[in-house]
Amino acid sequence: MKLTRRDFARLGAATALSKALPLRAQAKSEGRKLRWCIVGLGRISMGQFMPGLPLSKTGKVTALVSGHRGKAEQQATVYGVRPSAIYSYDDFDRIRHNDEIDAVYIALPNSMHAEYTIRAAQAGKHVLCEKPMATSLADCKAMIEACRKANVKLMIAYRCQYHPSHLKAIELIRTGAVGQVQAIDSAFGFNIRPGEWRLNKKMAGGGPLVDVGIYCLNASRYLTGENPQDLKAYASVIDHDGRFAQVEESDGWTMKFPSGIVASCSTSYGAMMNGYFRVHASKGWIYMDGFNYSGMHLTALLANGQTIDQPDPIAAPRQFTAEADYFADCVRNNREPKTDGAEGLRDMTAISRIYESAGLRLGA
Amino acid sequence: MKLTRRDFARLGAATALSKALPLRAQAKSEGRKLRWCIVGLGRISMGQFMPGLPLSKTGKVTALVSGHRGKAEQQATVYGVRPSAIYSYDDFDRIRHNDEIDAVYIALPNSMHAEYTIRAAQAGKHVLCEKPMATSLADCKAMIEACRKANVKLMIAYRCQYHPSHLKAIELIRTGAVGQVQAIDSAFGFNIRPGEWRLNKKMAGGGPLVDVGIYCLNASRYLTGENPQDLKAYASVIDHDGRFAQVEESDGWTMKFPSGIVASCSTSYGAMMNGYFRVHASKGWIYMDGFNYSGMHLTALLANGQTIDQPDPIAAPRQFTAEADYFADCVRNNREPKTDGAEGLRDMTAISRIYESAGLRLGA
Repeated sequence: MKLTRRDFARLGAATALSKALPLRAQAKSEGRKLRWCIVGLGRISMGQFMPGLPLSKTGKVTALVSGHRGKAEQQATVYGVRPSAIYSYDDFDRIRHNDEIDAVYIALPNSMHAEYTIRAAQAGKHVLCEKPMATSLADCKAMIEACRKANVKLMIAYRCQYHPSHLKAIELIRTGAVGQVQAIDSAFGFNIRPGEWRLNKKMAGGGPLVDVGIYCLNASRYLTGENPQDLKAYASVIDHDGRFAQVEESDGWTMKFPSGIVASCSTSYGAMMNGYFRVHASKGWIYMDGFNYSGMHLTALLANGQTIDQPDPIAAPRQFTAEADYFADCVRNNREPKTDGAEGLRDMTAISRIYESAGLRLGA
Repeated sequence: MKLTRRDFARLGAATALSKALPLRAQAKSEGRKLRWCIVGLGRISMGQFMPGLPLSKTGKVTALVSGHRGKAEQQATVYGVRPSAIYSYDDFDRIRHNDEIDAVYIALPNSMHAEYTIRAAQAGKHVLCEKPMATSLADCKAMIEACRKANVKLMIAYRCQYHPSHLKAIELIRTGAVGQVQAIDSAFGFNIRPGEWRLNKKMAGGGPLVDVGIYCLNASRYLTGENPQDLKAYASVIDHDGRFAQVEESDGWTMKFPSGIVASCSTSYGAMMNGYFRVHASKGWIYMDGFNYSGMHLTALLANGQTIDQPDPIAAPRQFTAEADYFADCVRNNREPKTDGAEGLRDMTAISRIYESAGLRLGA
């Protein structure tokens, strides 16, 4: 039986206490898990998302989509997926006939996000799509429209927005614990190996900005709770070693938010650029060391003199567990995810403007 | 007897080993100190520069200029300055008749730097002037010209360029120890008290950018060894509490250097913004925590896998000792200081462009 949004809503209504119970308790009381079809068997799905699901009571893998049958069969054994629930990209649309799929997790090269989100929506499945949402604003809008029309949830996998330390940073700002925020600095990047699809403009839509710089952009937005009013940027290529024939190597940009907060960010595919954000406020500061799958370290000085020094409270792959739990809750309770298609589109709109300011453009 | 540049040169020639000897040994062998006239008795001169001189063998305070006779007399007692060598701003030009003054240290509000540098030069005294060099590019040029004409040295007090940890960071970059630099992030600011002259546009020439943001700009320049080819900026005022009626509260800006390196910087008078710079390179990174008078902490990861974790090797006020030693060496050996007037002008030119990009302007 396929568990629809309405089923979840009914279950919710039948359980008077459901809203007061923690998510795992709810899932347990309901005895029903969100059944995931994993689209794309790469590093993030095999190393993080799928290992994260068994740690949750809300979800399980019931189907796989891959271009490599052997790899899919191996993963199917690990997660107890029926051989009949292994799909190729060609027969992907057959997932509509599989009632044991509630949602898809799309972990494909960026340029494929739109197509597979739309096809999944048309198959009546909810969609959790990796960031960046797509490689064009038109694609983002088509994804939103397709999911709206099919009445399925669309969430963009901004895992940091479900990480307790990032949520803590947001809370410190919203409650005034550090006073008025004036400025934010953020960076994220890495030294990329030749040959990655990320260096192919058609597949990636852009360089480090769409891949890792997007963390700095998104953090600046969720920390301020605002969208950049204006932004200015530079892009550059220093290493002429063949890697950057199609996409930029580094970007530096600054943004001004409606409140007056300024944010200065960097991203690179040519540097060992540990991810971080730093919030400079009138009565304190917040520093997050890391945007990685683990090891996010939060330190802060608060207005009341208190200091915070909090190592990452969750180990990999629990960031993905938290994200999957949240999505399951949205489906079950028919709630719009906070990182919905509109949120993804806001980032991609800003990225498009950053590229424009730097003399480049988003997309192929 | 006034010790002139020629005297120093003669002494140098007379001491065959002088060039091979460390500066202090030289000074000792020469038995002659650079005699300083301190212009402006504020926090930096009384708390840092003057206390730094007794730690050096190259300099001593022999004259004071202040608008407060009582304060000057008190400091004169501490440093053994003759009462006849205490000047007011009105009779400042009389320093030309004091042969016991070789150089002046100018620690006045920014708008007075040009006037007192030029008057000191005309009095035949070498000049060490605090940053920012002046409040207009025209003033910077006039200062350079006056010192050139008078054949005296002009150095801008960029103390970080004489700090061993900053020099170490520069060396790591120049020797390729971290690979190719791609990006630099830097910030510096503080939450300013109402009533400071720094908030008066006529006296300061600008807001946090000219006062503390200049550290980020200067660091980006000495780390890269380049001048920004292009830059883009925002300025903002968030706190409408009367402090920012004349100058901006915060600035965020990004720069692109000829090599392609991008730098993203922030400064603020409204935030607890600990100074730092972070160098993102292909095979490692460098992080300097602090631009303050003490506590600069250098950490780095090098291409060879080695890490550096170096607390500040010099305590306050030794940054000023190092700066004064360097200047004395330039005077003695008739060498142009590396942070000469041209260096100060380069920063002020960039600052003028940053303000222009942000819709503001440098100066009253």
